[in-house]
Amino acid sequence: MRAVVFDGQQVSVEDRPEPRAKTGAATIRVTLAGVCNTDLEIARGYMDFRGVLGHEFTGVVADGPSAWRGRRVVGEINFACGACASCHRGLGRHCPTRRVMGILDADGAFAEYVSAPVANLHAVPDTVSDEDAVFCEPLAAAFEIVEQLALTPSAWRTQRALVLGDGKLGLLVAQALQIAGARVVAVGRHRENLDVLGTRGIETHLEAEWAGSHAREPRFDVTVDATGSARGFAVAAAATRPRGTLVMKSTVAGAHKIDFAPVVIDELTVLGSRCGPFAPALRALSEGAVDVAPLIARRTPLERGPDALREAARPGVLKVLLDCTGS
Amino acid sequence: MRAVVFDGQQVSVEDRPEPRAKTGAATIRVTLAGVCNTDLEIARGYMDFRGVLGHEFTGVVADGPSAWRGRRVVGEINFACGACASCHRGLGRHCPTRRVMGILDADGAFAEYVSAPVANLHAVPDTVSDEDAVFCEPLAAAFEIVEQLALTPSAWRTQRALVLGDGKLGLLVAQALQIAGARVVAVGRHRENLDVLGTRGIETHLEAEWAGSHAREPRFDVTVDATGSARGFAVAAAATRPRGTLVMKSTVAGAHKIDFAPVVIDELTVLGSRCGPFAPALRALSEGAVDVAPLIARRTPLERGPDALREAARPGVLKVLLDCTGS
Repeated sequence: MRAVVFDGQQVSVEDRPEPRAKTGAATIRVTLAGVCNTDLEIARGYMDFRGVLGHEFTGVVADGPSAWRGRRVVGEINFACGACASCHRGLGRHCPTRRVMGILDADGAFAEYVSAPVANLHAVPDTVSDEDAVFCEPLAAAFEIVEQLALTPSAWRTQRALVLGDGKLGLLVAQALQIAGARVVAVGRHRENLDVLGTRGIETHLEAEWAGSHAREPRFDVTVDATGSARGFAVAAAATRPRGTLVMKSTVAGAHKIDFAPVVIDELTVLGSRCGPFAPALRALSEGAVDVAPLIARRTPLERGPDALREAARPGVLKVLLDCTGS
Repeated sequence: MRAVVFDGQQVSVEDRPEPRAKTGAATIRVTLAGVCNTDLEIARGYMDFRGVLGHEFTGVVADGPSAWRGRRVVGEINFACGACASCHRGLGRHCPTRRVMGILDADGAFAEYVSAPVANLHAVPDTVSDEDAVFCEPLAAAFEIVEQLALTPSAWRTQRALVLGDGKLGLLVAQALQIAGARVVAVGRHRENLDVLGTRGIETHLEAEWAGSHAREPRFDVTVDATGSARGFAVAAAATRPRGTLVMKSTVAGAHKIDFAPVVIDELTVLGSRCGPFAPALRALSEGAVDVAPLIARRTPLERGPDALREAARPGVLKVLLDCTGS
């Protein structure tokens, strides 16, 4: 099969053997796959990964248990052992011996076929198109924030949340928080990206204008740094009220200079946030509660995977999808 | 009166006018004052403070409302407005227009007299000596962690807590967490400091030995960085279990290089922690539930304040007290 591979030096399209369905696993014929910023970081050396890239996908089960064969699926990306203390506590996403699709010791979905444990699969309802389903993984990561914040009904539309970054993840985070009842303000650098949020009742500002005016505003109960860059932390910290929560949603490889004094002085809670629950993401997609179609910047054939990654790395470009069925 | 003053360049002992008791405030004749790492950071430029240093003290009310005159007191250091939204929510320590004794727009306690709002005063029980009472402020800061963690009874001796740093604050934090029911391991660089904790049932390790062996241990539910240096963060992050809590208890001025990937990957909760509640600290001192006497490294006359700060800055030196009544 054809696959987009990172060899430690460069990204290229290669012939690779098709994965075989081992016990408890399924082989999925990939329909669409999405490029995530984490893929770009991996191609710069993050996680020291070698192999087939990609972890956002939807496809059809080609081989595996009969109950799953032929079903449209999405798949959670952390392959847990299922037996350790973390797994027993329901924290399989933090299993210390986990493999992670396209990120850690497991081949990814930028390929004609990908393998995943059956326990990781979710059937895609008929009401969710392939183009929507491929957003399930990043939308789940957005809903992870909602789970971590555990907003109570009494907080409905009283908790003020700021989302910094109008990239593909920021736009999903803003929508997830709005669904969860927060009063969301989104700040970014691209008017056309922010406009995706306009129909959802989310207040949006261009960063340059907002930076000048927000000093007069009360600070936010919750801020989310989804800028994908180290600069976001200081802006988020300054915009968070004392005892408020700053959610770190960016994967930024390496060490960066950070002034921690505001975290201590204002006694902020800083929450690291990674992968999330697929079930609420699928429900939100099924109900049309989030807009993902406007996030699609381009569809590219699998064979042009390296071009797709370059395109996705350009500032302001939203989701680049790989069409994995075309060859 | 004589006072230890920082003028932006150096620390010296000067004559200053005695503070007068304004409405709602008291003038306290200072008995003992303690040197905190924050004082040392301020003398290096932190907070851009000018004036009388010092915020850990005990003394006797010399002037103010008659109900307070002659009483032995300690005093909370954040002077809140009492009227804003933060104050109404009980977060006077985060009042946006607060002054802070010896830190922000208010003269401190390295002097013969200091002024503080009556609302900030706590009477010292007869069972608490001056030498113990002067530890109330840093012990309250240690109890702040207990308040923030909100350990439940079901966590009694099951939550494993690691305290990094065997300075004066680290030793108080370790004791406060032990009282609160955590299973505490303290790691530091000075055997004689760690031995203060030996009688409290707290496991202690020298950093060099611990660093070699702890990779085999399960990671901790809670870690506290009380190293007073930027290096502590990475060690604490690596020692915190997925979804665990890292408490930042160090005041370190300036920006430092930090790798945030572990926070995101392990979805850590990072809690900034500053000043805390005096009431539980006074109760713990009154009951002898914490050992503070062994933390006293030296008592120095107020007149030799600059020497006291130099002494306190030496590695491994615990609490240096200023005797403010001697002149």
